[in-house]
Amino acid sequence: MSQRFAARTSIEQVEEGKELAPKFDSHGLIPAVTTDATSGELLMVGYMNAEALAHYWSRSRKVLWHKGATSGLVQTVKELLIDDDQDCVWLKVDIAGGASCHVGYRSCFYRRIPIGETARPLEFTEQDKVFDPQKIYGDAPNPTQL
Amino acid sequence: MSQRFAARTSIEQVEEGKELAPKFDSHGLIPAVTTDATSGELLMVGYMNAEALAHYWSRSRKVLWHKGATSGLVQTVKELLIDDDQDCVWLKVDIAGGASCHVGYRSCFYRRIPIGETARPLEFTEQDKVFDPQKIYGDAPNPTQL
Repeated sequence: MSQRFAARTSIEQVEEGKELAPKFDSHGLIPAVTTDATSGELLMVGYMNAEALAHYWSRSRKVLWHKGATSGLVQTVKELLIDDDQDCVWLKVDIAGGASCHVGYRSCFYRRIPIGETARPLEFTEQDKVFDPQKIYGDAPNPTQL
Repeated sequence: MSQRFAARTSIEQVEEGKELAPKFDSHGLIPAVTTDATSGELLMVGYMNAEALAHYWSRSRKVLWHKGATSGLVQTVKELLIDDDQDCVWLKVDIAGGASCHVGYRSCFYRRIPIGETARPLEFTEQDKVFDPQKIYGDAPNPTQL
């Protein structure tokens, strides 16, 4: 699948060119930042393999960023961008159901780290969950790794 | 430095708690997504070590996210958030000088990957650079790796 992409031949090509020449990490993945296409809010940071990226680029008009078959939290990709050195992508998505996070919040980033001279507890920025993960996922394994 | 952070003891603690218990990767780094505090635009995705994260949390009110001493492209951190499983942080910053990207653009994400049935060239979303990297960086090594 990765042969769909251009080989990385020069810094100028990678930074200034119009060829898609993405860099995948040692696990074959590229970070994917997802924001809400309407509000601009940061929703989640995930990882994509070459097949997934090629899918958006050249496979289908029906572009979906599957969050997992269990939850049904499907996101529609409205716009896809790549960064200067082509080792990170940005997806602007519509979130069906209003939630993106498996914990039940709209965004995965629902806690603020207070900035200051004293280390203080995290502050919740979302008061209520959009859904109850226990009802949606039941006993399915939690993706969070300790 | 990492002993400033809580140990990761349970999924509930990590996802629902108010303790900062970040997970660093095998290189001791955590991804840091940077957005413009005013416009919400995604500017860059970088990586932070434990010392840098502790700096924002508990060290100083003068919080700066240094993009590098050469360019002088200093960003002021206005807000800092962490995601559900605490393995990614989100920095909302003010960008002095109006540019965040070492190539000279406002955002690192200045190229769109067209979505569709046919693989097409990248499309530039920013027409003009904010600064000339040759003037700013001169012969300094380019951070982009092939």
